[in-house]
Amino acid sequence: MSDTQTTRRTVLTAAVALGLPAAGIGTAAAAEGRRGPKIGVLLYDGFSLLDPTGPAEVLSRLPGATVTMIGERRGPVRTDTGATAVVADRAVSEVDRLDVLLVPGAGNRGTGAAMQNPVLLDWIRRVDRHTTWTTSVCTGALILGAAGLLRERATTYWAAAPYLESTFGVRYVPERYVRVGKVITAAGVSAGIDMALFLAGKLAGEDVARAIQLAVEYDPHPPFDSGNAATASPQLKELALRLLAESQQ
Amino acid sequence: MSDTQTTRRTVLTAAVALGLPAAGIGTAAAAEGRRGPKIGVLLYDGFSLLDPTGPAEVLSRLPGATVTMIGERRGPVRTDTGATAVVADRAVSEVDRLDVLLVPGAGNRGTGAAMQNPVLLDWIRRVDRHTTWTTSVCTGALILGAAGLLRERATTYWAAAPYLESTFGVRYVPERYVRVGKVITAAGVSAGIDMALFLAGKLAGEDVARAIQLAVEYDPHPPFDSGNAATASPQLKELALRLLAESQQ
Repeated sequence: MSDTQTTRRTVLTAAVALGLPAAGIGTAAAAEGRRGPKIGVLLYDGFSLLDPTGPAEVLSRLPGATVTMIGERRGPVRTDTGATAVVADRAVSEVDRLDVLLVPGAGNRGTGAAMQNPVLLDWIRRVDRHTTWTTSVCTGALILGAAGLLRERATTYWAAAPYLESTFGVRYVPERYVRVGKVITAAGVSAGIDMALFLAGKLAGEDVARAIQLAVEYDPHPPFDSGNAATASPQLKELALRLLAESQQ
Repeated sequence: MSDTQTTRRTVLTAAVALGLPAAGIGTAAAAEGRRGPKIGVLLYDGFSLLDPTGPAEVLSRLPGATVTMIGERRGPVRTDTGATAVVADRAVSEVDRLDVLLVPGAGNRGTGAAMQNPVLLDWIRRVDRHTTWTTSVCTGALILGAAGLLRERATTYWAAAPYLESTFGVRYVPERYVRVGKVITAAGVSAGIDMALFLAGKLAGEDVARAIQLAVEYDPHPPFDSGNAATASPQLKELALRLLAESQQ
C-alpha cells in the first residue's frame, strides 16, 4: 500500500486475489472494434441521473456492446439538480446509426426544453429510422412523443401520465415498460433498469439477460414499499413532487 | 417547435402543461447555500456506473441535500467499460467534511488500484472521522476495508465475498445492505439504491424516504428473477463474471 503507482502486475494480483476473472484487464477491444449492438444514450441538459445510467449499466454488459453517451454537443451534460455531469462523448451530428436509442427523462425544465429543441427531435427521428429498438425512460416518452414516435400505448413518469395522454393521444399503461412495435417506453427513473433487462433478453437471449441481472446483483429489496403511484396517498404524491421540485434547478 | 431558444416562459408553460410543480425552476438555492446533508461520492478510475449514480439519484432528493462527485483530481472519471465518464466536480484535496461518504465499487482493475492508492485511502480515513455515515456499494466495501474501516460484518459484491472475509476478517452477510455502527455496506451495483433509501430514512425520516421512493418510481419488477447469487447456478455465475470481464477494460 506504499506505492501510488499501480502496475499491471499488482492489478492482476488483486484481480486474482478477488477471485474475479482477469480476462478483460487491458485486453478489452476498443469500442470501434466491438461487434455487438451499438447503443446510444441521448443526454440533454437537466436529465435525471439514474434514467440513462441504470440502463447503460445493464446494456454495457451485453456481449460486444458499445454504449455511447451522445449530446447536442460533446462535453459534460448537467443533471436536473445541476450537481452532477455525465460526459457526452459524441455529438448528435456525429451519430447516424444506432441499434438501440435510449432517451432518458428529466425534470420539467429539461423535458420542456428538449421537447422544443428541433436539433434533438430531428436527430431522434433520423436515428429512429434505422434502429432495432427506440426506447425511453420516464419523461423521455414525452420527447419521443414530441418527435412523433409514439403510437397506441406508452408509459412514462406517473405524474406525467395525463399530459402524455392529452398531448399525444396514446393510452398510458401503468407498467414498468410498454412495448409497441420497436418502441419501448419505461416508467419513471428506476424503471429503466427493468426495461433494460427486458431489452437485453431481446438482444442477446434470456440466458444472457439473466446473467446480467446477476452481474449487477439486481435482486431488489427496498426497505419500503411506496414506489407505486397507483397505491400512493395524495399526501405522499405531493411530498414526492415537492422534493423533486426543490432538488431541481 | 420552431425555436431553438427556450425561454423561461416556454419552460414554465411546459412545466404547467406537464402537471408537475414548477417551484424549483430557476429558484433552486446554489449548492453552497443548501442546509441539508452534504453527501460526497468518491469517483475513481474504473468505477461501475450504477454504483454511485443510483444512490446519488435517491440522496439528491433529500431536503436541502448536496451530492458532490469527488475524484483524486477534478474532471471526467471513466467507468470500468471505459465508455462513459462522470465528472468529479471536486478533488479530494478540496473536501474535508462530509455528512455522508459513499465509495462505489468497480471492476478488478479499478478496485485493485483504489485499494492500493494511499491518496484515496488517506482521504477516506480523514473524512470518515467526521461523517455521520460512511457507506459503500459493491466492491467499494473492499476499499473501506483497505482503509481499515470495516468491523464485524459487511456485505459486498457476491463474487468478492470470500476475498472480503479472508482479507479483512469480517463476516460477509448476503443482504442488500449491512449496517455496523455508522458504516453501511451495500451488496453489488444495484443494491446501492436499496441502501440509499434506508439511509434517506435515517437522515430525513421514513415519510421522506417513502416519498423519494415514489419520486424515483422505484417499484421494481425485473422480468427475470436471477439477481441473487445464493440461488444462481454455477453456470449462470460463470456467465455473469465472463460478461463482466469482457465488458471491462
